[in-house]
Amino acid sequence: MSFEQMWRELATVGRSAKSGGYFRQPFASAERECAVWFEEECARRSLEITRDGNGNVFAWWQPAGTSGRGVLTGSHLDSVLNGGAYDGPLGVVSALAAVDVMQDRGFTPSKPIGIGSFVEEEGSRFGLACLGSRLMTGATSVAAARELKDRDGVNLVDAMSDAGIEPDLGRSDLLDRVECFVELHVEQGRDLIERGVPVGVASAIWPHGRYRFDFTGEANHAGTTRMEDRRDPMLTYAMTALGANETARLSGQRATFGRVDVQPNGTNAVPSRVTAWLDARADSSEQLESMLAEIERLAHERCDRDGTAVQVTAESVSAAVHFDRDLADRIAAREDGDAWPIIATMAGHDAGVLSAAGVPTAMLFVRNPTGVSHSPDEFAEMADCLAGVEALADTLERLSA
Amino acid sequence: MSFEQMWRELATVGRSAKSGGYFRQPFASAERECAVWFEEECARRSLEITRDGNGNVFAWWQPAGTSGRGVLTGSHLDSVLNGGAYDGPLGVVSALAAVDVMQDRGFTPSKPIGIGSFVEEEGSRFGLACLGSRLMTGATSVAAARELKDRDGVNLVDAMSDAGIEPDLGRSDLLDRVECFVELHVEQGRDLIERGVPVGVASAIWPHGRYRFDFTGEANHAGTTRMEDRRDPMLTYAMTALGANETARLSGQRATFGRVDVQPNGTNAVPSRVTAWLDARADSSEQLESMLAEIERLAHERCDRDGTAVQVTAESVSAAVHFDRDLADRIAAREDGDAWPIIATMAGHDAGVLSAAGVPTAMLFVRNPTGVSHSPDEFAEMADCLAGVEALADTLERLSA
Repeated sequence: MSFEQMWRELATVGRSAKSGGYFRQPFASAERECAVWFEEECARRSLEITRDGNGNVFAWWQPAGTSGRGVLTGSHLDSVLNGGAYDGPLGVVSALAAVDVMQDRGFTPSKPIGIGSFVEEEGSRFGLACLGSRLMTGATSVAAARELKDRDGVNLVDAMSDAGIEPDLGRSDLLDRVECFVELHVEQGRDLIERGVPVGVASAIWPHGRYRFDFTGEANHAGTTRMEDRRDPMLTYAMTALGANETARLSGQRATFGRVDVQPNGTNAVPSRVTAWLDARADSSEQLESMLAEIERLAHERCDRDGTAVQVTAESVSAAVHFDRDLADRIAAREDGDAWPIIATMAGHDAGVLSAAGVPTAMLFVRNPTGVSHSPDEFAEMADCLAGVEALADTLERLSA
Repeated sequence: MSFEQMWRELATVGRSAKSGGYFRQPFASAERECAVWFEEECARRSLEITRDGNGNVFAWWQPAGTSGRGVLTGSHLDSVLNGGAYDGPLGVVSALAAVDVMQDRGFTPSKPIGIGSFVEEEGSRFGLACLGSRLMTGATSVAAARELKDRDGVNLVDAMSDAGIEPDLGRSDLLDRVECFVELHVEQGRDLIERGVPVGVASAIWPHGRYRFDFTGEANHAGTTRMEDRRDPMLTYAMTALGANETARLSGQRATFGRVDVQPNGTNAVPSRVTAWLDARADSSEQLESMLAEIERLAHERCDRDGTAVQVTAESVSAAVHFDRDLADRIAAREDGDAWPIIATMAGHDAGVLSAAGVPTAMLFVRNPTGVSHSPDEFAEMADCLAGVEALADTLERLSA
């Protein structure tokens, strides 16, 4: 089955007819349908399917004559809420198609080639991005993972059991067969569109933190309580959100409040509590820390005025990831003597987690005309997707020859 | 059973052990338990229980010799989310206790005396305050009520059916037996505490509007999207919330954003949509309109800057209610020649709906030491509650003699 056929098949799964966006929440029905589809495609190619107790799946092509550790590619199948079709699945479907391309070319690897599907990359259900790869590499402890709950209060282990997966959280031996990892991903910016090329190679991932801001005040009646008698945490939150935006804008970094939970969240009640999550990214850890410090300062300053309080909890902080430069150069080199550009990314990926765990890692990006991602508008031209498949096949051949 | 005993019994129902607040959502288990308790107390007093198809209950004391239309008192049993014990139930329990007081005094009315329990007064489940009394008086159309859904998408009629109530929405004949209505309520401000008296009488209710603000932008990745490339509706919302607060503060009115719904509400996603509800109250309809216009102006101004859009929908707007002055004067008069103070309130009540429907209506307030309401901290001293019961019994005697 061609890339285009596979893409069309998968495109219907978990898509909202209303918004056109995808709802592929880890361990819920649509994402599980994607997972089954993936394993069927692997089985059709006679790949050896291996699974761990975190929900990750690696499938290996190891024709006679291959031996030792292999070259892993792949990505993830889950999406954010109302997300796009490409973020994740493009890397998985391209991997399947790249195996087909290599076989059509008559290529025989001397090392096994694997396709990985990592669970809960987005962190959109349990709040921790790259959960599957983090558990697999030990970057997240089993104890911490056991505390995670989704919006409905369902914990990770129960969600896995409900999906028919026997949970056995923690470091898994799937990685023992991996020599290096190459993840293909849709670009989430407009670097390649500005350069006019369909494919790029990653140099690094920006440091990234997620921080929970708990703003507390005093619940009260929205009609009878005089404005000057209130301790309204919504105001403190609002000023902090504006301040975070301005701080990031002025310094060329990123700061976003995209998730908010209000208590009691009634129209006629001054809230008692507003919990909001800051997503912050910067080009260095020092920049990230100084931006967070400035946002915290603004929040506390406004607390004094509103009679409220704020507590900031770092839920996850990832240091910068610098991908293997040698690997990137090898991947970027083209037959025609030219080279794909090597660019930085501000998005976290399972590739970042594997790199941090000591696996030589690289990433390929496929051009995105609008730069939009995590949205129904996320897009890549079919010709660019096919260029990505070719580049991935070239890369896997070079690394497994 | 004394007021104190009844109060203690009811106090356990729907109370969160964690916050100490009440979760008595209309047609859900805790509120239904309160409703059953109320009917049992009415039955114990041999009151005639009548119900309508909106979920409202009126119970009548009509000893031999009474005839014609009667004097209705009562209030509601539902609470906001994490609300207090007093807002609503104080008026119902005081009504039961006032009947006991009159009977103990040997008083025999010449008109029937009724105790009403109105459903969904807070609007905390279906978003429309005083839903029970509005439906009963025709102030809300059946068609509009049929469109109402709670947070989980359950519509009103299904919620009623699930609670074992046969829905028959709309104008009901329960009101045909009512000559006038007196609602006792905990004060939701600090007027009485400043005056140093336990009881007050209402003069008027401020005009009140609830407006839904739909801020729309473009969903995007929180890491990869440059700050200057975003169309982030959270920023527009934040500036509007701050502007609403300032506008109300400067003009001595009330404006509150206490309920927010974010789409997709993911930590690493710039939101596509923020929906927020403005609760606005002012001392005249002109003031309310001019405050809303100013807040809308601020929202649109910020939209231009953020590249976002806003649409404002009035979900409910109530004109000022001026209670029957003659009735208020009669109620305020005390045996000792002194009078209870007559004060305005900024909170909506079923009394306001009945007054607007042409029923001569009055309200009694019981002192609240902190003025706090819609919160676990809502409170009234037992001595003040008992003073309220006495004042209510005096009032009912005067009006039904």
